[in-house]
Amino acid sequence: MRNQPHVKLYIPGPIEVSPETFEAMSQPMIGHRGSEFSALYEQVMPVMRELMGTARPVFLSTSSAWGVMEAAIRNLSSKRVLNCCCGAFSDKWHDVTLRCGREADRLAVEWGQPILPGDLRRTLEGGDYDLVTLVHNETSTGVLNPLADLAAVVRDFPDVMLVVDTVSSFSAVPIEMDALGIDVVLTGSQKALALPPGLAPFAVSERALERAADTPDRGYYFDFLEFEKNAANFATPSTPCISLIYGLAHQLQRIVEEGIENRYKRHEALNAMIHQWGSQRKFEHFAGEGYRSKSLTTFCNNRDLDLGAWNKILRDKYRVAINMGYGKIKGKTFRISNMGDETPESIGELIRILDQSLADLGAL
Amino acid sequence: MRNQPHVKLYIPGPIEVSPETFEAMSQPMIGHRGSEFSALYEQVMPVMRELMGTARPVFLSTSSAWGVMEAAIRNLSSKRVLNCCCGAFSDKWHDVTLRCGREADRLAVEWGQPILPGDLRRTLEGGDYDLVTLVHNETSTGVLNPLADLAAVVRDFPDVMLVVDTVSSFSAVPIEMDALGIDVVLTGSQKALALPPGLAPFAVSERALERAADTPDRGYYFDFLEFEKNAANFATPSTPCISLIYGLAHQLQRIVEEGIENRYKRHEALNAMIHQWGSQRKFEHFAGEGYRSKSLTTFCNNRDLDLGAWNKILRDKYRVAINMGYGKIKGKTFRISNMGDETPESIGELIRILDQSLADLGAL
Repeated sequence: MRNQPHVKLYIPGPIEVSPETFEAMSQPMIGHRGSEFSALYEQVMPVMRELMGTARPVFLSTSSAWGVMEAAIRNLSSKRVLNCCCGAFSDKWHDVTLRCGREADRLAVEWGQPILPGDLRRTLEGGDYDLVTLVHNETSTGVLNPLADLAAVVRDFPDVMLVVDTVSSFSAVPIEMDALGIDVVLTGSQKALALPPGLAPFAVSERALERAADTPDRGYYFDFLEFEKNAANFATPSTPCISLIYGLAHQLQRIVEEGIENRYKRHEALNAMIHQWGSQRKFEHFAGEGYRSKSLTTFCNNRDLDLGAWNKILRDKYRVAINMGYGKIKGKTFRISNMGDETPESIGELIRILDQSLADLGAL
Repeated sequence: MRNQPHVKLYIPGPIEVSPETFEAMSQPMIGHRGSEFSALYEQVMPVMRELMGTARPVFLSTSSAWGVMEAAIRNLSSKRVLNCCCGAFSDKWHDVTLRCGREADRLAVEWGQPILPGDLRRTLEGGDYDLVTLVHNETSTGVLNPLADLAAVVRDFPDVMLVVDTVSSFSAVPIEMDALGIDVVLTGSQKALALPPGLAPFAVSERALERAADTPDRGYYFDFLEFEKNAANFATPSTPCISLIYGLAHQLQRIVEEGIENRYKRHEALNAMIHQWGSQRKFEHFAGEGYRSKSLTTFCNNRDLDLGAWNKILRDKYRVAINMGYGKIKGKTFRISNMGDETPESIGELIRILDQSLADLGAL
């Protein structure tokens, strides 16, 4: 058993982390209040800004993305939140909003469908909201929401701020925070950045900081103003996950070497390979056409495969893992990630494995 | 420059992380909702329980300790908090309590002095508190507070719960959560556990969970009830810092091999070596006698050394770092850690370096 290769993850996060990234993460510890840490933070700032499409500082939260998703509620809403709900993670954001003691409504669509600008406009016109939450790329359904169009709608309501979870889209497709007037963009380390989990980078607009200053009981750990104050000196409010930030610096260097546009194109091309395979094998998409993620694919189990058996073959015989559905569509869908450091060769190999395993199942 | 050894940290955290720990942290990613992760969590549970002195589950928060320190306020107080203040971190806990919108008072002693049971009793008798916060080992002053005696006082007030920050004492001295009736024990990964920062283990008493259930607006990320529910299946509410938990499993294995009692004795012996050196070199202790930390030492700069120059020599010539004081005693004190994987040999080498560097300064 010990000499078997490890199971390579094509689940939509965490995903495979390269030996080079682990090596970067294994650099000796440094004090987090000294010049070495601030130099490290300063080093990652420009590329993170570019990937986020912002001139604002990018903050580094030692948490998973949920910490910042909750923080956005606590820092920015004192009236009523509109949660755009189109899958497991965006639905949960509504629940988390209520748990923070905020009033909130759902703009809900059927899973697999996107949030549409017209619906968002009508809902905002009908309520007295101060904050909209949106998951850009719904990792559970594989839907990529039309961010630019939705942001344009929110901009027409000057008192409403927009928080966007780009957890599974960040660095796989362009994010234009400033151009779209987004107030908070947040992401996580274990998706397209191909790092282990535990780091949640995010950025906050100036007007959102002003509102946070007027919002009581923000606490400390996720206080946006503390992040702003510390980031001015390339520091963090609390002791940061130094190893992950070393890993981030390494991955950003690779992103610069590849070229950001090339990276987006690569993710699109690898995603198209998965789509093409699905089409050949007669799997239907769960996400509506025109709104499909570029970083992962959610297929329907329309061929009624025994997903448990397939999973076992993939893991035990071929040492790869895909995901057999999340939340209420578990067992009815399966998901394949093409995020991170993958290449046409590695995705080609995955596709060969998918075919071989289907043949093993008698389902090719 | 590149071929120089790295600067070995004897600051009171983060501290040196061994190559073996980094290797453990470099194990391939696993899904955090699968059996491999729950097996990993289950593996660390017994030793963490023993180190914390509890039969309760130990929760794994992906954050620094401040996240859990804030969480304890949000989950457990709806009346009035008493913050025991005896240094930079315990003072800050008062500020954080207020930022969470809670009423709070300070039981403050001069920095360098411990919190005393009589004072605590009188203060609790004089106010209507529901929560006491205590930093066991004040990392800024090097004071080890008399935890057993203080906990005994709090137990005499049945409506008052006790939260103890063991950030820089955990796994260096015994913690007896259940025996002392402590309601929350929390720690961090970058101190005596000798891991990188980003993981904050903690445990919560049953009665604290009951109170949390009645406390509104706990949110999600640090909701004690979510941790409890997930820990029952060896899972975490949000995506955990998997690499640090691999590192934790490795370090706990080493702790078991050494023997927990031997580990405590080793920390005490290494601490005594530092104390003896300080005594030889005529440095006075900042912490009052009888209340001195076993994991770090805070010396007064009573010999008026140029701490900046000393620091530079230590770093540039000898590639070690100690800390030149924190908060309002920066420059007036210096701190040396003996936490983690250190040995009589490595602390002996540090002492030789301290002497050589003092000689370089003309101050031996």
